[in-house]
Amino acid sequence: MFRDIRAQELKNPVDVAEYLFRRLHEIGIRSIHGVPGDYNLVALDYIKKNGLTWVGNCNELNAGYAADGYARVNGAAALVTTFGVGELSAVNAIAGAYSEFVPIVHIVGYPTTGAQKDGLLLHHTLGNGDFLAFSKMSAEISCAVSMLNDHHEAATLIDHAITECVLKSRPVYIGLPSDIVTKKVDGDRLKTPLDLSFPPNDPEKEDYVVDVVLKYLREARNPVILVDACAIRHRALTETSEFIIKTGIPAFVAPMGKGAIDETLPNYGGVYAGDGSNKGVRERVESADLILTIGSVKSDFNTAGFSYRVSQLNTIDFHSYGVKVRYSEYPGVRMNGVLSKVTAKLGQLNIESGPQPNNDIPDTEQDSTQPTITQAWFWPRLGQWLQPKDIVITETGTANFGIWETRFPKDTTAISQVLWGSIGYATGAAQGAALAAKEQGIKRTILFTGDGSFQLTAQELSTMIRNKLNPIIFVICNNGYTIERFIHGMEDEYNDVQEWRYKDLPAAFGAKEGEVLTYRVETKDEVEKLFKDEEFVSGDTKKLRFVELVMRWDDAPQALLKVAESAAKRNA
Amino acid sequence: MFRDIRAQELKNPVDVAEYLFRRLHEIGIRSIHGVPGDYNLVALDYIKKNGLTWVGNCNELNAGYAADGYARVNGAAALVTTFGVGELSAVNAIAGAYSEFVPIVHIVGYPTTGAQKDGLLLHHTLGNGDFLAFSKMSAEISCAVSMLNDHHEAATLIDHAITECVLKSRPVYIGLPSDIVTKKVDGDRLKTPLDLSFPPNDPEKEDYVVDVVLKYLREARNPVILVDACAIRHRALTETSEFIIKTGIPAFVAPMGKGAIDETLPNYGGVYAGDGSNKGVRERVESADLILTIGSVKSDFNTAGFSYRVSQLNTIDFHSYGVKVRYSEYPGVRMNGVLSKVTAKLGQLNIESGPQPNNDIPDTEQDSTQPTITQAWFWPRLGQWLQPKDIVITETGTANFGIWETRFPKDTTAISQVLWGSIGYATGAAQGAALAAKEQGIKRTILFTGDGSFQLTAQELSTMIRNKLNPIIFVICNNGYTIERFIHGMEDEYNDVQEWRYKDLPAAFGAKEGEVLTYRVETKDEVEKLFKDEEFVSGDTKKLRFVELVMRWDDAPQALLKVAESAAKRNA
Repeated sequence: MFRDIRAQELKNPVDVAEYLFRRLHEIGIRSIHGVPGDYNLVALDYIKKNGLTWVGNCNELNAGYAADGYARVNGAAALVTTFGVGELSAVNAIAGAYSEFVPIVHIVGYPTTGAQKDGLLLHHTLGNGDFLAFSKMSAEISCAVSMLNDHHEAATLIDHAITECVLKSRPVYIGLPSDIVTKKVDGDRLKTPLDLSFPPNDPEKEDYVVDVVLKYLREARNPVILVDACAIRHRALTETSEFIIKTGIPAFVAPMGKGAIDETLPNYGGVYAGDGSNKGVRERVESADLILTIGSVKSDFNTAGFSYRVSQLNTIDFHSYGVKVRYSEYPGVRMNGVLSKVTAKLGQLNIESGPQPNNDIPDTEQDSTQPTITQAWFWPRLGQWLQPKDIVITETGTANFGIWETRFPKDTTAISQVLWGSIGYATGAAQGAALAAKEQGIKRTILFTGDGSFQLTAQELSTMIRNKLNPIIFVICNNGYTIERFIHGMEDEYNDVQEWRYKDLPAAFGAKEGEVLTYRVETKDEVEKLFKDEEFVSGDTKKLRFVELVMRWDDAPQALLKVAESAAKRNA
Repeated sequence: MFRDIRAQELKNPVDVAEYLFRRLHEIGIRSIHGVPGDYNLVALDYIKKNGLTWVGNCNELNAGYAADGYARVNGAAALVTTFGVGELSAVNAIAGAYSEFVPIVHIVGYPTTGAQKDGLLLHHTLGNGDFLAFSKMSAEISCAVSMLNDHHEAATLIDHAITECVLKSRPVYIGLPSDIVTKKVDGDRLKTPLDLSFPPNDPEKEDYVVDVVLKYLREARNPVILVDACAIRHRALTETSEFIIKTGIPAFVAPMGKGAIDETLPNYGGVYAGDGSNKGVRERVESADLILTIGSVKSDFNTAGFSYRVSQLNTIDFHSYGVKVRYSEYPGVRMNGVLSKVTAKLGQLNIESGPQPNNDIPDTEQDSTQPTITQAWFWPRLGQWLQPKDIVITETGTANFGIWETRFPKDTTAISQVLWGSIGYATGAAQGAALAAKEQGIKRTILFTGDGSFQLTAQELSTMIRNKLNPIIFVICNNGYTIERFIHGMEDEYNDVQEWRYKDLPAAFGAKEGEVLTYRVETKDEVEKLFKDEEFVSGDTKKLRFVELVMRWDDAPQALLKVAESAAKRNA
């Protein structure tokens, strides 16, 4: 009774679930990924009436991957699962988002607060009365855990979780018991938008760092810029772009930074990854007397096996959490403000131009009379075909190494999971990315995955069809886990996969006549023909396009060979 | 150098991975489920040469479910995944096995001990140098965690983990760094088999408990026996069966105990689940003056919403961890020994016969002229068609409630996940069960799943085809999550699923002409015809059989209606 009276006293009382979904709407989320389960059903009733769309994925892992892809295009995403069985299926996707700094609000429908208090032996429990085991597991891979067990705290905890999610660019976990869903909270709070701006740097400290940076920058004779994942994930792309354009310094991307900068700029220099670098790039970067890294992530796959040959004595690192000049560290000074001021105060710089990457197909491939589609031929050729604003998703495997050889048109968004590297990710992520693209009027979402990887999450094709998305999907048919073969077990059976009739899947997953176009290309000529096929190419078509792209089982991009060799050595 | 010398001094030195796989072979495991990943590849080399078969699942969650199904038929199972991305995809399956007492040895391929010590920024990590986060997560759902970071301890830790797994009948986690795989351990240890016998009860204490039980048993005028999941999972079926046969007391099963006892016995009484019980059962059980429960699990779904109406004053509970007579507890006295002695010393008992369940189709269904296949008609009809030794797997949803109405032939094995209740489980479990069945010469593995559930793990069909398994699969096509509809959102879109062309999937997943038979049945007559089709029925066919079983979206077994109503109330 007491609670009901309080509710009536609230200004514009709204239900907890309404509050939550309106906050999600406020931060730009328009679609909610997930799978229904009895502990979240009541909450799902609030999605539509708060202007959001329920995606309805085939399973929770796929939903988590899709949320990740959606967040990378849209800025943030939300995922709804059910207690135990649902949430645990999604933890690999959430861990990937944690590892790669992707903001996902993971809402888990819990049994009622009463059932938890009484330790009831409910379905979806471990049978031991422990209702905290799963949130403890998720705490390892979330930057905030908000258990909404008391509705008086619910609004505060929701606001805290969403703010942390956006500012730290990492997943958060919200436990929503089914009896709390309909409890009332103060709706007037919603009139004050969440403050999602980064706290400004201390001005004096920032100025100090800017001066140090400028000193080294002006002294340098042939500096280079290296942009990496965290420039994207921690939202420093505007500052980075202005810095690159105004300075004219040769600018490179690490593999995880692919898509971070405009690759049509005259000072774009290509992909740097130590020994795995593109032609001319390694020499240019490693001979620089100053390397300015922005959002660097020096992971094994991102550095072709820790093969950078650059000295920290020649390096300035810009991060979300601080700046490092040679060995001097300036924690707590966010890169965004520093980069802006450095750009504003540049002065005279010494610039030597870098290599000029292009999408030329290597001569050996150009001259080859072999009709087979090779990795060395395909990826530069792809660059000639891509269009501005394309979203390009590459799976861990031959694709996310091959893409190093593709020079992008302007405003290309690249999605891959170089650090976490969970195979199956890309197909799920493509669903989310294509949905965000549709919401934003972006025409083409293009997925490259391998046959082995595709098999993990193939049913997300169904979710795409169900949600009337029309990505272009390339499944590289090369008989198994090629990336693993090059690490260990080249011809071992465990690296084979069952041979599917991939292009029969869209119809089996319920695509109707005319909703999907399917293709199989086995030769370079067939690729050329496909790339010129107007219906295939057009972003205006309302059709999903599905291509079996046949390559040899033992063919891999050069960069992958380097990385695999290094991984094999490290595993020994 | 020191290590090499040690290795030469070992008697019959064997590699750590060989030691591990030979121990798994020793406890009866013949097939290893899992997915390759670069941190486990070197270990996979040891599978074939130690007389084991690598299954090669499509993804890790499915592999985990399959291992669970394999373990329920075979006694134990093993699963190999890779660090981070692989193992986390499987945690839902492992949590289910923990919840439902299924012994799975989960082997996770780790980065080298050196890489861990140096905190390298490797792929498949959270990027924070923490190599313990995932094992901590798994500790919540494992009865032992063995990190093989020091090969001198490896054999001891392996033996400990496997012993715990079998004796506690729960999953264990073994972290195997890739550099430890090939390190040498003492092979002579393998000459001493693991001691997997349950520690015997203290004889004096056991005798005391036996006397107490016998006192109440002899005084009782109309006792009943209720057998539940833990009698199966903690391996007390022999003692249970002897007790039931010798006493002649009416014996019932809880839903999770289905298949635990011979349902052709004259004193088999049916399924008891409180309000959800079969006809006549509830009255018989609840009017008994003594209820002897064996391995009871009083979870919500297993008791039709905690609807038992029996008093603890009339109850004796036999458990793996102790015996409870009325309110007197006797911890540490395992049921097996107590039941054997009680059976041996029975004396004169008073027995009133129980109800006689059958597979008769209810009159209302019998008289109906409607051709539609109803839940009320199908499940008893199924009982008439099943054969001795069949393995019957029912998914959480209409199937695992419907099966309460099916009286089994002798030696039927029933598999479902009533407590954990993760949809998608049954299809994965069917792969593992069918493989164990094949290894043991059992002819028929029969899966009943729903369309919504099937979509989560559909690609395990591919693994069945690849491994030349020939289960009989029924996909109940009823347009979505019917179990959820009855809990909340009867007509809401979030309970719909994309309509697939289910029976086109085996071919898309690579089944060759003649390897699979597909069917669609929409009427009772078509079911009758199917059940008489010799090629479909035969266990000798080498063909997988796949049936679309069409039912109404709003039809559910009576028991499910009761349970859903109760769950809806508890969620409010």
